Amino acid sequence: MKKFTPEYLRKVATDIFIGCGSPPNEAAIVADDLVESNLLGYDSHGIIRCETYVEFVVSKRVVPGAPMRIEKETPVTAIVDCGLNFGQVSATLMADIACEKAAKSGMAYIVCKNGCHVGRMGSYVQRVAERGMLGIATSNNRKIGHVVAPWGGREGRLGTNPFAYAAPTKGWPVVLDMSTCMIAEGKVYLAKQEGKSVPPGCIQDADGKPTNDPNVFYGPPRGTVLPLGAPQFGYKGFGLSMMVEIMGGIMAGQDATENQPGFNGFSIIAIDPEFYCGRDTFSELVNRLCEYQMSSAPAPGFKEVVVPGVYDFRTKEKRLAEGLFVDDQVWKMVVNSAKQVGVTIEE
Amino acid sequence: MKKFTPEYLRKVATDIFIGCGSPPNEAAIVADDLVESNLLGYDSHGIIRCETYVEFVVSKRVVPGAPMRIEKETPVTAIVDCGLNFGQVSATLMADIACEKAAKSGMAYIVCKNGCHVGRMGSYVQRVAERGMLGIATSNNRKIGHVVAPWGGREGRLGTNPFAYAAPTKGWPVVLDMSTCMIAEGKVYLAKQEGKSVPPGCIQDADGKPTNDPNVFYGPPRGTVLPLGAPQFGYKGFGLSMMVEIMGGIMAGQDATENQPGFNGFSIIAIDPEFYCGRDTFSELVNRLCEYQMSSAPAPGFKEVVVPGVYDFRTKEKRLAEGLFVDDQVWKMVVNSAKQVGVTIEE
Repeated sequence: MKKFTPEYLRKVATDIFIGCGSPPNEAAIVADDLVESNLLGYDSHGIIRCETYVEFVVSKRVVPGAPMRIEKETPVTAIVDCGLNFGQVSATLMADIACEKAAKSGMAYIVCKNGCHVGRMGSYVQRVAERGMLGIATSNNRKIGHVVAPWGGREGRLGTNPFAYAAPTKGWPVVLDMSTCMIAEGKVYLAKQEGKSVPPGCIQDADGKPTNDPNVFYGPPRGTVLPLGAPQFGYKGFGLSMMVEIMGGIMAGQDATENQPGFNGFSIIAIDPEFYCGRDTFSELVNRLCEYQMSSAPAPGFKEVVVPGVYDFRTKEKRLAEGLFVDDQVWKMVVNSAKQVGVTIEE
Repeated sequence: MKKFTPEYLRKVATDIFIGCGSPPNEAAIVADDLVESNLLGYDSHGIIRCETYVEFVVSKRVVPGAPMRIEKETPVTAIVDCGLNFGQVSATLMADIACEKAAKSGMAYIVCKNGCHVGRMGSYVQRVAERGMLGIATSNNRKIGHVVAPWGGREGRLGTNPFAYAAPTKGWPVVLDMSTCMIAEGKVYLAKQEGKSVPPGCIQDADGKPTNDPNVFYGPPRGTVLPLGAPQFGYKGFGLSMMVEIMGGIMAGQDATENQPGFNGFSIIAIDPEFYCGRDTFSELVNRLCEYQMSSAPAPGFKEVVVPGVYDFRTKEKRLAEGLFVDDQVWKMVVNSAKQVGVTIEE
């Protein structure tokens, strides 16, 4: 375990992405997002990703610095061709376009083509909430990532299809960032590596029989992940997942049944409350809603009730105070990725 | 059990609401929605509601024929004051406003004040999908209807807060209409009446201890319904429910922590794909997405995979062919409600 400041990790990651060919401002966007993920406790979306991102660049699946082009737009709509640039770069741009349009016209909904891995979805809706607006985002996966079965099915037909939203309060924004399935495949893989089982009701084998065993899941033949709410209310997670596919992929003209270029479809909505109840009233009322939720006595097994995002922001405060601890193995991966693109890091 | 044609039930219900003081066109909107609910299999939202609706009018909680006023608007936004008119009347108007604005500008998001019980949410998003657009709607409840606990809590802080969306295909639209909690309180009440238990993981007693027993739920003291995904992933349903509260109530300036006039907050979004990939491409790609889902081999216990809405539309086909069967007790309620407002029905 090594301890670093966020600033140092940001510098290292920025250098790596500059080494990949990104302009410095774009390299910084990707680096910021990874380090912010570490700070918030999402280490799976943190600097561990440097390795795969460098691989994506080497294999030309990601094109650093690729120009992004608005293919079609109106005051409240846009299709952005992301040109296979880093997902963080294009999603950040899309969030900014959404906010700019929403501030002028009340709302905006931006979709994309040729987008890459966007990282932590919460990041973009939070960006919208920080400007006093309501942000909603979806991200779907290419066909190759269809590990989730439809409700009542046993073959993969959807990605983990996360859905996120954020709203401003007087303090930390409310940020929900959730997959529409029972468990991310990454967690199943981790359980397999660690020789553990996964919680009941999350995965099934290739015949559609319930299992807790990651080895049974990976087969071959490989099993599938169940939609949120399974088994009883699996139609809800399934329906939400289809909505993510429709909003993030289909609206941009991407066929869900074929492998599209890039990695993720991504869409973002910004709604400016100034056109409704007013920004101040909005954040005040969201704040009251949060306090009202948190005023509930906890159920057995819970110490308190918190609204979405609170645990993450608390983790960030803690990690800002204590520094970021990086696993030796992960740090070795970062150092190697840096070497691969000609960047030398003190080990 | 009595058998009726939908036309006859529509006429009866229309006469009842005219008897309540609604103009004929508005009475027909409410009647259509109730009978459509019966056709689609949602008998709990069907003509059984005539009784409570008449009571609402008698107690002046609903004001038939009340003028609806647009309080604030732009080409893509609006706050509609529904004046406590029937929820179906105002939600239908809001859906139409959303579609009209979306067809001109690409999208629209309409919120309301002083709204009443909107009935089946799927109805309004389907109305949007029938015009080739993507429709999304939310409905929150007044404080008095806060029967759902926040994640980790044991006191009611949210309504059942349904979320709905619909998208066009080449055949039946995809229509998801789901509560963001584990079970509607109405179903708990029904189980109590029938001396049955509810499925595990749906409700808890006033101390936050899990129970299957509706009698324990009703206490007193009364227990709470759990958010969708409980217990493990209850933060997802909780977060979605808060979003419904934010979109349907707070955006219109309604404080969730106080009892607002009316019954439900309601919001509707319409997005016109013509401003993105084009309407034809959109419905074609949604159609392909549906076929792709339904092409999955079924899991054990399922005969087939269907997309959201299919079961409902099949029920409608069956009921259109066979007629609508109404329970004697329910029919007596309808006849009595009719009498109350001076309408005579052949019994």
